[in-house]
Amino acid sequence: MEVITGIAPILAVGGLIMAFIIYTYLSKQPDGNEKMREIAAMIHDGAMVYLKRQYTILVVFIVAVAILLAIFINPYTALAYVGGAISSMLAGFFGMKGATKANVRTAQAANLYKPDTARSLSLAFLGGSVMGLCVASLGLFGVGVLFIIFGRPETASVINGYAMGASSIALFARVGGGIYTKAADVGSDLVGKIEAGIPEDDPRNPGVIADNIGDNVGDVAGLGADIFESYVGAIVASIAIGATAIAGTKVSELGSSASLMAFPVVLTMTGLVASIIGILGMRFLERRDPAAALRYATFIAAGLFLFGSYFVVGMVGVQSGVYWAVLSGCVAGIAIGLITEHYTGSSPVERVAESSQTGPATTIITGIAVGLESTALPVLVICAAIFISDYFAGIYGIGIAGVGMLATTGMIMSVDAYGPIADNAGGISEMSGLGKDVRVITDSLDALGNTTAAIGKGFAISSAALTALALFAAFSQSIAVRLGKPLEILVTDPTVVIGLFLGGIIPFFVGALVMTSVGKAAFEMVTEIRRQFKEIPGLLQGKKGVKPDVKRCIDISTTAALREMIAPGVIAVVAPVLVGFILGPAALGGMLAGATICGVLLAIFMANSGGVWDNAKKHIEKGNLGGKGSEAHKAAVVGDTVGDPFKDAAGPAMNILIKLMSIIALIIAPLLV
Amino acid sequence: MEVITGIAPILAVGGLIMAFIIYTYLSKQPDGNEKMREIAAMIHDGAMVYLKRQYTILVVFIVAVAILLAIFINPYTALAYVGGAISSMLAGFFGMKGATKANVRTAQAANLYKPDTARSLSLAFLGGSVMGLCVASLGLFGVGVLFIIFGRPETASVINGYAMGASSIALFARVGGGIYTKAADVGSDLVGKIEAGIPEDDPRNPGVIADNIGDNVGDVAGLGADIFESYVGAIVASIAIGATAIAGTKVSELGSSASLMAFPVVLTMTGLVASIIGILGMRFLERRDPAAALRYATFIAAGLFLFGSYFVVGMVGVQSGVYWAVLSGCVAGIAIGLITEHYTGSSPVERVAESSQTGPATTIITGIAVGLESTALPVLVICAAIFISDYFAGIYGIGIAGVGMLATTGMIMSVDAYGPIADNAGGISEMSGLGKDVRVITDSLDALGNTTAAIGKGFAISSAALTALALFAAFSQSIAVRLGKPLEILVTDPTVVIGLFLGGIIPFFVGALVMTSVGKAAFEMVTEIRRQFKEIPGLLQGKKGVKPDVKRCIDISTTAALREMIAPGVIAVVAPVLVGFILGPAALGGMLAGATICGVLLAIFMANSGGVWDNAKKHIEKGNLGGKGSEAHKAAVVGDTVGDPFKDAAGPAMNILIKLMSIIALIIAPLLV
Repeated sequence: MEVITGIAPILAVGGLIMAFIIYTYLSKQPDGNEKMREIAAMIHDGAMVYLKRQYTILVVFIVAVAILLAIFINPYTALAYVGGAISSMLAGFFGMKGATKANVRTAQAANLYKPDTARSLSLAFLGGSVMGLCVASLGLFGVGVLFIIFGRPETASVINGYAMGASSIALFARVGGGIYTKAADVGSDLVGKIEAGIPEDDPRNPGVIADNIGDNVGDVAGLGADIFESYVGAIVASIAIGATAIAGTKVSELGSSASLMAFPVVLTMTGLVASIIGILGMRFLERRDPAAALRYATFIAAGLFLFGSYFVVGMVGVQSGVYWAVLSGCVAGIAIGLITEHYTGSSPVERVAESSQTGPATTIITGIAVGLESTALPVLVICAAIFISDYFAGIYGIGIAGVGMLATTGMIMSVDAYGPIADNAGGISEMSGLGKDVRVITDSLDALGNTTAAIGKGFAISSAALTALALFAAFSQSIAVRLGKPLEILVTDPTVVIGLFLGGIIPFFVGALVMTSVGKAAFEMVTEIRRQFKEIPGLLQGKKGVKPDVKRCIDISTTAALREMIAPGVIAVVAPVLVGFILGPAALGGMLAGATICGVLLAIFMANSGGVWDNAKKHIEKGNLGGKGSEAHKAAVVGDTVGDPFKDAAGPAMNILIKLMSIIALIIAPLLV
Repeated sequence: MEVITGIAPILAVGGLIMAFIIYTYLSKQPDGNEKMREIAAMIHDGAMVYLKRQYTILVVFIVAVAILLAIFINPYTALAYVGGAISSMLAGFFGMKGATKANVRTAQAANLYKPDTARSLSLAFLGGSVMGLCVASLGLFGVGVLFIIFGRPETASVINGYAMGASSIALFARVGGGIYTKAADVGSDLVGKIEAGIPEDDPRNPGVIADNIGDNVGDVAGLGADIFESYVGAIVASIAIGATAIAGTKVSELGSSASLMAFPVVLTMTGLVASIIGILGMRFLERRDPAAALRYATFIAAGLFLFGSYFVVGMVGVQSGVYWAVLSGCVAGIAIGLITEHYTGSSPVERVAESSQTGPATTIITGIAVGLESTALPVLVICAAIFISDYFAGIYGIGIAGVGMLATTGMIMSVDAYGPIADNAGGISEMSGLGKDVRVITDSLDALGNTTAAIGKGFAISSAALTALALFAAFSQSIAVRLGKPLEILVTDPTVVIGLFLGGIIPFFVGALVMTSVGKAAFEMVTEIRRQFKEIPGLLQGKKGVKPDVKRCIDISTTAALREMIAPGVIAVVAPVLVGFILGPAALGGMLAGATICGVLLAIFMANSGGVWDNAKKHIEKGNLGGKGSEAHKAAVVGDTVGDPFKDAAGPAMNILIKLMSIIALIIAPLLV
């Protein structure tokens, strides 16, 4: 078995090499005329500048936390922590490189091969696959190496540090990225679309470059860090539960500690192989309808993974019931994706669009109602996955369900990152004036990207829920091992009730902070764009040679994102530590449960309200209910603008929050006994 | 001790007699000219028609549940249940009688004594005190009588039925009332204020009578049923915890079962006496600034109660530590009121008002951010109250903290019900054309009413939280007594986690239902008002003798409210029963905790977002940021319209939901072991 897990890093390096080959291939594709290259360079540079400034700030944070970990836990955990942080940052960096290469080439492919979409689809997807492969391979590499060194029950807790490193970066990347992209998006739309009446991505608007950078910063790097964290977190939690399996409990009957610890690693390896095959399979699928191609590729990867993991169960030597956990996680991920697709498409979209006929107020009311309602089914699916995996494999099963859901991250993340690339391609064609027939292609790819983004959000939330629960289980088991008896987190204990309430506050409060930050940053952006339209003569009239000052807008987004990401990050890190030390481990357990439940529900609510507003606006823009410029459209734009920070900033922050709090609890567990 | 609790019903009858005297006094006050009387009669009749139709539907529900209780629990509990339901309905009925007498007389007093406000203030407050005294006295009467008959540890569980009866009515009254008032309010505003540009309460608008009825149906009867439920629930939960005190636990050391059971009853008696003195004290305070008068009267009642209850502790023979629970509950209630006042007044209002300068989207974003943020402090206060009361008196302390918070309900409810009466008085003066100087008085009383309403909402939520937790504690102790060992609701048990998630869904889902219902009903209202403006010649132009068809609008609100209140009610009743029987008592415990946490947070979020939007609009209407008619004002009106169903329909529904689910769990507890 050690031989198998021993090759994990090698397999991971294989994945990275494949990502590099794809990147090189992408670089060789035609990147259009000078204007396109200029715009693409601005987007690329802006994204890289942001990433560098973000990472510079994070280094301080990482060093500080690493020192604390080295002092209070042990130096190995501190090193693992730094490794996790660096891996997450590298994944973000490589992913952005791929995405910013692919965007302009996707636009140019649409231009060269119009009206054929296959080539554009392929390039956008390959761009996303750089991110997908980097996330999956870097995660497997890090965990694999640590597993070789520390993969024994006595030392396995060191690996937790890796997940904490990933989580720390994720929170800042998600929150910062979300604020960046939404400040630019909301600001540009408010002045450009609503006040000045010019189209989206119009080159006259000084905010559009920042908006396009935001797509990369938020939806590529931010989402990548989010999924990377879930992916690593689920594996690490499963290893931790396997390592601390208590004799006589259900978990201990599933297999030896060694088998239980190796199983998630081997599962992940299987998932990476399945993802690589799925990505290669796109070559043969790209001639089909784009939506079908992406769906089939995802199903191929999932199918191969499920097929392969059936044999992994026997090979690693865990009880066959564990397979049910793998299956339930994998199926739950797909089911929640489909439910999300329903709530941000079809009838709910029509409902919101119709309500916009009576103005913005009813648009908002209906969208909020849809979002609130949409929490029920995904959470029921999560409950079903918990029930099945617990029934067959105890709390270990919950971790494994998370791994099962996330094992094909290589594929899923590729599809997710495809969306913002297609969005950027559209922006670049509009700004460089490539003409309507090109825009038709990029619009169709972008519309599909909205669907994949919605599904991706559902997936990110559900995987975060399972990961947080698995980490929570690992935390309580870790305390139990040290106590020599189960940790009793009784809901009837008032201290635990206080913990539950305190945990519940955090997502609401952090959500408020993020919404406020977006509001503030968008306001600065609005003021700046208004100023430029007023002070730069000829800009709004589209006089030749007059250019907006895009740098100022980029700077506003960058500064705001970096400034505003600090407070939520600090709260998420400090709150569990304070509660753990002041009120004790039981209250901390309550806090994790409260934060997870409220966080998951708020995240789904915000993601789906935002998604349905976005699509209701698009539905009207297609010519329904009066089309563009109608009163209904104006109301729908208000809904979309409110939905932006919901779905792309505050909502996604919840995912990270619940995982980060759980991993911190797991790390400080030894100090609490 | 039995002598003291034995006089509880007599004291309660005294309270009712006082309510009757006030009602008779009100009836004798001048009720204005013919036009005013005609409008007042329409409001009164509409409210009574609604109440009768609502009660007719509820009778079916009550009889069905009573039969089930008689079969599965015992006939006594069924009788107590019917008693609780009837008491709640009577309180609503009497309260509405008082409010609909007082509204027109308040308007006439403003007319007769202008510019003096004292007389109007006094009448509006006295109108509210009919509701306040009825709620407090009927609750004490019901519990008192049942306590005389069943107040022994073996039979005390019968009294739980009374609280369940109160809860059942409350849910329908709150949800139905909320939908009624908001359909009328939103519908009238959307067409009248936004489309036709006519002022609020303009007699040309066919929806205004329905809107004014709605104030009574929702804010008087609905709120009354809500507070009645908390009041009764907290007393009943404390009795239940005292009755099932398990030897060797902290609770059993606080005093004998008999003392622990009697204590909440005697506390409530003290609170009623303190409230009566406070209400009488208004006679001497009414010459002051109205806001100060109401505040001092509340403080007098609270102070007298705290003073009296200090001696009650010794008299009844419970340990002196229990007093801390009384104190923490009482202080927490006041603190949360003040926090709510902050978040729906002062700087947050200015923040939202300023954000409305950039349009409705930023208004909504900022209002949501304020609402999310505002959850933190009240919940921290609740946590502190839990901590203190648990520290001094175990889970019994949590129940007693609830009683402490609610004991002066007679006073608090009087102030709460004052608001909609003042609002109605304003509507009546506008519709009957009493002139500007009268309107100035009613406007100032109405503005104060908004503040008291906001504080009242904070109070309703926090008391609901404590009551739900106390009922939850009573539930787990009741199961433990039957099991012979503690009920272990472990957060680490996946079944409990499923329960927590399922519980968390319910407030979100019910919130969605209520929001959707308001949206649908408002849409019907909008269509009808638009039709009348179009089809009735001369209506919009204000031609003499042309009257709107207000009956159709009243009918729309009534029908919608009665139709839409069913689904949320059924979910709240059925969900805990299903989870209890299918997944077991531990999962049910998790469900109650999940529902309570999410319900409390959502309720605060919705109440305060709604409150801050409302006041931001009023802030602009006072002439700030461009005043009425400006773009900022239009944006603020959108915020207010979204906030209406938030704060007056969906938000308050949460309070009842969490209490109703907990009381049902307590009732079915014997069947689950």
